[in-house]
Amino acid sequence: MVLWFTENHSPTVRFSVKLEKQLFSGSSDFQKIEVFQTEEFGKILALDGLIMVTEKDEFIYHDMITHVPMATNPNIKKVLVIGAGDGGTIRELTRYDSIEQIDMVEIDELVVDVCKEYLPQTASKLDDPRVNLFFEDGLRYVRSKENEYDLIIVDSTDPFGPGEGLFTKEFYGNCYKALTDDGILVNQHESPFYEEDAAGMKKAHQRIIGYFPICHVYQVHIPTYPSGHWLFGFASKKYHPINDLDADSWNKLGIQTKYYNTDIHVGSFALPNYVKEQLKDVE
Amino acid sequence: MVLWFTENHSPTVRFSVKLEKQLFSGSSDFQKIEVFQTEEFGKILALDGLIMVTEKDEFIYHDMITHVPMATNPNIKKVLVIGAGDGGTIRELTRYDSIEQIDMVEIDELVVDVCKEYLPQTASKLDDPRVNLFFEDGLRYVRSKENEYDLIIVDSTDPFGPGEGLFTKEFYGNCYKALTDDGILVNQHESPFYEEDAAGMKKAHQRIIGYFPICHVYQVHIPTYPSGHWLFGFASKKYHPINDLDADSWNKLGIQTKYYNTDIHVGSFALPNYVKEQLKDVE
Repeated sequence: MVLWFTENHSPTVRFSVKLEKQLFSGSSDFQKIEVFQTEEFGKILALDGLIMVTEKDEFIYHDMITHVPMATNPNIKKVLVIGAGDGGTIRELTRYDSIEQIDMVEIDELVVDVCKEYLPQTASKLDDPRVNLFFEDGLRYVRSKENEYDLIIVDSTDPFGPGEGLFTKEFYGNCYKALTDDGILVNQHESPFYEEDAAGMKKAHQRIIGYFPICHVYQVHIPTYPSGHWLFGFASKKYHPINDLDADSWNKLGIQTKYYNTDIHVGSFALPNYVKEQLKDVE
Repeated sequence: MVLWFTENHSPTVRFSVKLEKQLFSGSSDFQKIEVFQTEEFGKILALDGLIMVTEKDEFIYHDMITHVPMATNPNIKKVLVIGAGDGGTIRELTRYDSIEQIDMVEIDELVVDVCKEYLPQTASKLDDPRVNLFFEDGLRYVRSKENEYDLIIVDSTDPFGPGEGLFTKEFYGNCYKALTDDGILVNQHESPFYEEDAAGMKKAHQRIIGYFPICHVYQVHIPTYPSGHWLFGFASKKYHPINDLDADSWNKLGIQTKYYNTDIHVGSFALPNYVKEQLKDVE
């Protein structure tokens, strides 16, 4: 029997991957969690039927959500990561000796357990001594924090299901409060192409610009996400993602990456006109 | 009955689009030609079972294959377009009053006839008085040309089937010869992500750098092509695609575009490290 994993990218568009076998299937209080072995992508993690991580292209997402803020402000010492249960964002952060503390808040402990067992490629650094793991609602966690983090990374699922609260006004307002005076917020920002994703993107942008004086959106090629055209949000109190980039300093760190470099850092903030129009619609 | 169009993006990855109806199906001497009506993408043109053009995202491909060279050298007057049967590249070129002559060489007349009937969105400018249509093999056409064109655009299918000759050493050498001393060659350059596409990309790059002193590759988000991560090649005798870009002059032309702008022109030449490595492998 040949098994395929199929994800709807829109109501009338489907993306299917041939499976070698299912490695895990289970349900937490929050979502359905599956891990598959595939020929094309290696192992795949799917949550509620949507591909979150594949071994073949996870480096793209994790490079771009992490190194863009880190290269903009090399003095980041204390980081809050919300979501990110697969551990890939943490893995990239732990490559910076300058980071002293990483608090990670993931609502679903089972995701972390499953990734530790089946996806060591991303989960291997979750036991770094600088990492504190909290299994709770990120929305609630951030409420009580004030002037504490230099960087918050929102590595969430989509704005429906367990990730919904991480796209609300209240959440972004609390992130602003939880950041220091030169703090940066980076969030996964959905995609401009298919209608439902674009609605999420516009909503996120509209809410973030209500709080932060510096707001930019940057784009990445992620082949296993719908349309392959994915966005991140860069919101900041002080640092500008291009003007304050210190490319020489970052390059001196000697961090080897497969996607990120300081040229693509700058290049990724140049958006197509149709995406700029979508963002302008809500500004 | 619900019908789907399915394309293999790799041997184990499939992309499927729900069809409203089939508008045309026929075979020429060269390939199978189909046009479908879909909800998500409007009309789709498929050749030999591969999506070539959709009404929803064709603007991305056509903007980026055309405006990048035109903004680099605003004095382009005589253009050769090879392939491009859907007409989208011609449509964009005809927006420049400064262009005096466009020779288009498409091997398959039936593609042009079908697009004129079913895809006026792209084919509408094929009767511009500056356009000369030749229905013949581009490889053969270019052999006899010398020092004639300011710009050659290779808007081809993949490097197998009827497009195969447009990825050969002989072809690129003849393009070099057919260009004037400040000529530019832009070609569709496949994709870095899936193995077969990446092989085509490396082969094209290896062969082009054998002739042209200035060779760069730039990237575009095309959601309906495999992986959504597509590349174009920019090869040139004199003009550098970034150093010689005159953004002010281009912006003064007032050409309205949905994807291209002079920032993304520059940004699109910043490639991920893994793509740079692939190109370096063959340099």
